[in-house]
Amino acid sequence: MAEISRLSASDEGFDRQLEALMSWESISDRQVQDTVDTILAAVRDRGDQALLDYTIRFDGWEPEQATDLEIPSARLEQAWQGLPASQRQALTLAAGRIRDYAEHQKLAGWSYREPDGTLLGQQVTPLDRVGLYVPGGKAAYPSSVLMNAIPAKVAGVPELIMVVPTPGGDVNELVLAAAHIAGVTRAFAIGGAQAVAALAYGTALVPPVDKIVGPGNIFVATAKRAVFGRVGIDMIAGPSEILILCDGQTDPDWIAMDLFSQAEHDEDAQAILVAWDPDYLDRVAASIERLLPTMERHAIIAKALKARGALILVRDLDEAVALANRVAPEHLELSVADPQPLAARIRHAGAIFLGRHTAEAVGDYCAGPNHVLPTSRTARFSSPLGVYDFQKRSSLIMASPQGAATLGQTAAVLARGEGLTAHARSAEYRGVAGADVERPADV
Amino acid sequence: MAEISRLSASDEGFDRQLEALMSWESISDRQVQDTVDTILAAVRDRGDQALLDYTIRFDGWEPEQATDLEIPSARLEQAWQGLPASQRQALTLAAGRIRDYAEHQKLAGWSYREPDGTLLGQQVTPLDRVGLYVPGGKAAYPSSVLMNAIPAKVAGVPELIMVVPTPGGDVNELVLAAAHIAGVTRAFAIGGAQAVAALAYGTALVPPVDKIVGPGNIFVATAKRAVFGRVGIDMIAGPSEILILCDGQTDPDWIAMDLFSQAEHDEDAQAILVAWDPDYLDRVAASIERLLPTMERHAIIAKALKARGALILVRDLDEAVALANRVAPEHLELSVADPQPLAARIRHAGAIFLGRHTAEAVGDYCAGPNHVLPTSRTARFSSPLGVYDFQKRSSLIMASPQGAATLGQTAAVLARGEGLTAHARSAEYRGVAGADVERPADV
Repeated sequence: MAEISRLSASDEGFDRQLEALMSWESISDRQVQDTVDTILAAVRDRGDQALLDYTIRFDGWEPEQATDLEIPSARLEQAWQGLPASQRQALTLAAGRIRDYAEHQKLAGWSYREPDGTLLGQQVTPLDRVGLYVPGGKAAYPSSVLMNAIPAKVAGVPELIMVVPTPGGDVNELVLAAAHIAGVTRAFAIGGAQAVAALAYGTALVPPVDKIVGPGNIFVATAKRAVFGRVGIDMIAGPSEILILCDGQTDPDWIAMDLFSQAEHDEDAQAILVAWDPDYLDRVAASIERLLPTMERHAIIAKALKARGALILVRDLDEAVALANRVAPEHLELSVADPQPLAARIRHAGAIFLGRHTAEAVGDYCAGPNHVLPTSRTARFSSPLGVYDFQKRSSLIMASPQGAATLGQTAAVLARGEGLTAHARSAEYRGVAGADVERPADV
Repeated sequence: MAEISRLSASDEGFDRQLEALMSWESISDRQVQDTVDTILAAVRDRGDQALLDYTIRFDGWEPEQATDLEIPSARLEQAWQGLPASQRQALTLAAGRIRDYAEHQKLAGWSYREPDGTLLGQQVTPLDRVGLYVPGGKAAYPSSVLMNAIPAKVAGVPELIMVVPTPGGDVNELVLAAAHIAGVTRAFAIGGAQAVAALAYGTALVPPVDKIVGPGNIFVATAKRAVFGRVGIDMIAGPSEILILCDGQTDPDWIAMDLFSQAEHDEDAQAILVAWDPDYLDRVAASIERLLPTMERHAIIAKALKARGALILVRDLDEAVALANRVAPEHLELSVADPQPLAARIRHAGAIFLGRHTAEAVGDYCAGPNHVLPTSRTARFSSPLGVYDFQKRSSLIMASPQGAATLGQTAAVLARGEGLTAHARSAEYRGVAGADVERPADV
């Protein structure tokens, strides 16, 4: 018997139930923190030797020297050539679509001139070098390699350094193949907090990067949080989530399978259906009951649905929209007849899947938009991973002599108000246009 | 005698000297961390009562009840009306220019249709509610209120919550006036880690926000890092920095004063001049010597120049550019005859000030671009505070029936490669276009 909570938004206590359902905190306890601090310090102090020691200890294989930790580019290409044609074709198509979508995100610089000749603007540049963390073991997804690497390439990042643990020395051929097609520059068979440390501080073997992206376990997440500031990081990801909003007219089997596709990720994944037709919720529940035993990963799905899933009855569409905005889900499916006006009412969601024909799963692989999305309600303030995460801006200010004089007066008033008289005098010097310039400025 | 290091890039040991000069780590020791953890937990558990207790203890005044902690909007307006006309005029002009520049940064949504009718796009929305931390005491800058609040308003954030500690109950009239003109929604007389906690978790009095921006001391920075993930935060700011690159033709008094304007912020501020004319470095050193005693804040300036300042001789312009990119300074002044081609060669800087007439100080107050900039070499991967920090993106995917069929096939191949068969089946259901839809979908 498949278990999943049935809730009603009009029940007293619903607010509390919803909070309990959504609550998720990945707290690094002090022990994890201390372990990570030790590892970071060891890699910082002893470099490659520490990488060798931790790899032997945690990954269970025995590299003899530091250079054994590098996965040569030829090995990535070999993995690519070794794939069945169907997978090569699918990865090529997916990579192409991710690239096409990413091209639309590219930021461009701009500038404008004011009447007095002063120029203001913004210069956009790519990061120099980016680190990509790829998990080993059960969560080793080639699609994640594409999703993390391609936006960086489109941004113009010249160097992309991948790290991936190889427990027992086993490599994932699909991951290596994806790294090849995504354009990874160098790859290293290291993982855990020690890999994050290597990317942040650099070692003789591993070059230091400017930003680290990609998902990992609690040690990786804790290490990323610790090195944030020295390097940039992406968001700390929580469990994957979907919220489906349905008008009751989509085949209930489709919706049940969409819930499963989220729940099969892991036991903490969250799958929620919201509808205003109580009969429809019954029909989806029946589909779940009937289809669950047919699923390869039914044990994981059953646990996830029981622990964090829900079928929620709301009064009407308006209440459904309010609920979606409150949950701010990573994935939001609008399985309704006319989804576009509805999407315009969504304030917070990582990705919005519009209409009955858009399964969330196509977004995970090949629709084009990134599958690295804000989880745990962070869509309230953050965005999908994108090209913009690998570009940065520099402000441009070029005062004309006249602009320097007028702006200088205002700056001086405000600077003296704050007690910063060097600021005031520095601005005022330029007020006497050209007077103190040995050679006339030609700006 | 003014002390400032004289370095030469061609000296053996220069790399090490430069690293030592730039090195800055704001480590929260375990004691700070524990104090902050205690404060966060107290505010989370006891809400307004904890705010009252900490305000009495740390800020040294005695609010009788929680509502005493709110600064009414009428009080902000009163502060504005009480300012001298010159300051009202300067703040108005600055606010207008900051707003005009910010308008250029606003992100807009976009979408495109593929030949098979599939729609892909990106929806842009503002954050719902933002918290603005304003320091009390010596670093209480009205210009910072404008720089943090105005981009949020331009982004369309409906609610802006300001917190500002009032040690001894003293409020800074200029800060309140700036909050009025910047459009702050509500203001509270609280500070420290307790104010960060109130913004992150909410109390009966203080509404919870989605992102916290603004500078603060080590307790504020540590609290922001701790609540990151529950809410968004801006960068953790280090000491302010300037690097000036000069061709030796700008009045040395101007350059000396520009160095002073950075150094007067505090004793940790960093001011560096780079030039390829050794005589020019001597002339700037002489200007420093002569002008320093005339400065109101000469004690702070002298300490900052001695501890972290430098006059650096390079071989030529190319070496100067390489050095600037390596330092990735918060502020970069290009005090040369033809600055635009030079700016195009800069890969990493928070703000670039072009030409002899552009004093960094006008950027601090009224040029238009934000003065909240990446410090401590973080310009390698981050950007000035801007409208984009108060907007977020949601991906849009609407598959046509035909698109669902072709994308579904590719997704299924990749999903099975990753062992995720619910993903595959969810995508494949849509492959039989329309067949299982009770009512034809009109997407």
